[in-house]
Amino acid sequence: MHKKTLEDIGEKELINRLGKFMPKNQISDDCALIKTKNENLLVNTDCLVENVHFNDINICPMDLGWKAVVSNISDLLSSGSKKTIGITISLVLPPRTEWIWVEELYKGINKALKEYGGMILGGDCSKGDDKVISITAFGIQGELELRRNACKPGEIILTTGIHGLSKLGFLMQNKINFDNQFSLNERLIIKSIEHFCRPRVYPNFLNNLLKTRSNKKIKRIGCTDSSDGLFQALQDLAMASSCKAIIDYEKIPKDKDWPNGDKWDEYYFFGGEDYELVFSLPKKWAKNLSKLDKNINEIGFFTDGKPSIEFNDNKKNKILNNTTFKHF
Amino acid sequence: MHKKTLEDIGEKELINRLGKFMPKNQISDDCALIKTKNENLLVNTDCLVENVHFNDINICPMDLGWKAVVSNISDLLSSGSKKTIGITISLVLPPRTEWIWVEELYKGINKALKEYGGMILGGDCSKGDDKVISITAFGIQGELELRRNACKPGEIILTTGIHGLSKLGFLMQNKINFDNQFSLNERLIIKSIEHFCRPRVYPNFLNNLLKTRSNKKIKRIGCTDSSDGLFQALQDLAMASSCKAIIDYEKIPKDKDWPNGDKWDEYYFFGGEDYELVFSLPKKWAKNLSKLDKNINEIGFFTDGKPSIEFNDNKKNKILNNTTFKHF
Repeated sequence: MHKKTLEDIGEKELINRLGKFMPKNQISDDCALIKTKNENLLVNTDCLVENVHFNDINICPMDLGWKAVVSNISDLLSSGSKKTIGITISLVLPPRTEWIWVEELYKGINKALKEYGGMILGGDCSKGDDKVISITAFGIQGELELRRNACKPGEIILTTGIHGLSKLGFLMQNKINFDNQFSLNERLIIKSIEHFCRPRVYPNFLNNLLKTRSNKKIKRIGCTDSSDGLFQALQDLAMASSCKAIIDYEKIPKDKDWPNGDKWDEYYFFGGEDYELVFSLPKKWAKNLSKLDKNINEIGFFTDGKPSIEFNDNKKNKILNNTTFKHF
Repeated sequence: MHKKTLEDIGEKELINRLGKFMPKNQISDDCALIKTKNENLLVNTDCLVENVHFNDINICPMDLGWKAVVSNISDLLSSGSKKTIGITISLVLPPRTEWIWVEELYKGINKALKEYGGMILGGDCSKGDDKVISITAFGIQGELELRRNACKPGEIILTTGIHGLSKLGFLMQNKINFDNQFSLNERLIIKSIEHFCRPRVYPNFLNNLLKTRSNKKIKRIGCTDSSDGLFQALQDLAMASSCKAIIDYEKIPKDKDWPNGDKWDEYYFFGGEDYELVFSLPKKWAKNLSKLDKNINEIGFFTDGKPSIEFNDNKKNKILNNTTFKHF
């Protein structure tokens, strides 16, 4: 009898099965929580594998170091971390790796830590055939707990920025040809590559949330980041919070030169690695926040119903018949 | 010009160079320290790579899971962790990996956590060509700070148990032939394989240390574990504490059936993966502790001098002209 492999069972089922080995409260969120006497710590682990998440052609080691840190900090922020303490780094490197590659990687790591706070706490290093960079990041849980399962029907869905750019940058860096390549705006191309190689996060987001909170009793907010794409983020929120997301396609913030068409919608919703926050707030709070921070956009709302995503314009729902990034 | 690779510069120089990217206090110890308002956390990361640290022939996935956890807990204990909070797991697995392999790995992980405390807090999973298991473990710093740099001249060097067994187990599991194989005691073979596949640690060690402390003012103890071999542990302590280790070969605890000879000395001092603690204490404390715990043995002492290791019997010093485990 053929024993089932990871390829057979697929990523979703793998996560589901691994979840059974973990305490229930730790499964559905971006970060794990460690309770200490006075403060709670947020912990996140992210793993980048050569020829799966990066290669020598599409990103230079300094940008890779930056991005590895930022993807972890994005998860901390999306759980409500008020301060990044630091990271540990587990590196697997082939012996033929040039020292300068490692040096550049660490320069990028420290650049991101200088920008967003935190320091290298320690790590481990081993030889291996392919490069692997696994980073575990630690932050301090702030006053607001941001959790995937805290969205509520009636709340407004918001996002901190534009999606799809990182995917376009990835395609450009991998020199993948596509039909209307030559009609693409140069500014958009440069911006997209910047988003792919040097993504940014918004440490000020938490302060702005606190500043605009009208009801001090609210301590939990539904939130995740769009590292696996906007669609996946919305789905994760809907599933964890047991409610239905209704998205207004017209309200979705796009780059002014972003082309129209099915393919471009696919990049936008399924591209991933944009590290924008996707979250929901009561109406008044949402209005105050998007007034204070012009990068934040309302894109829809949650309602009662089967955990799912729908566009209010039914014609747009075909976009959703798509597959997300497959890990296996 | 040939750019220097990691193979060219070697492991020691690599660690030295990476150290420059880290805050100074975090370089020389088994764990990193995270200060929170009331408690300090200890954090350790260890990375196991297929065909470097393990393969499908020499260890089954359940034992591998156990061992991956234990090697991390050993580092926490050797820094004075009074309680293991939990671990995060970063997994790289080829898509052809059978689910049952992953399930067995997690069973071994949870068996070790059940035995020694702690839970799975979270993690990440990605595909890749070779299996990589990177675990980050968290513990709470106890009253006694165990640190590599806290040994003092005049202190007695002790170890919690017998070395070399794991190396012998490794050779047996890899079916490596050696001359006097047939003269080996069967009990010793079984015990060695057990040590290699299912290493154990001593969570009671810290309590026994506290129980036998005669001077309550002493808060820091020189300590590390012998995961990279007894010699490496002694060298790490000597280097970090700037003192000289004098070892009494006759006092070193060996299995009663451990053969004599240069090769067996090499396995004993350089074998690694025994996860015994190697530490130093003031004379009186050392005496009290080895009286209370019969597995603990005095094996020498630290003295003023250039950081180094010497046997008091000069004839034995040839053992030390050897190389340790090379990571690159």
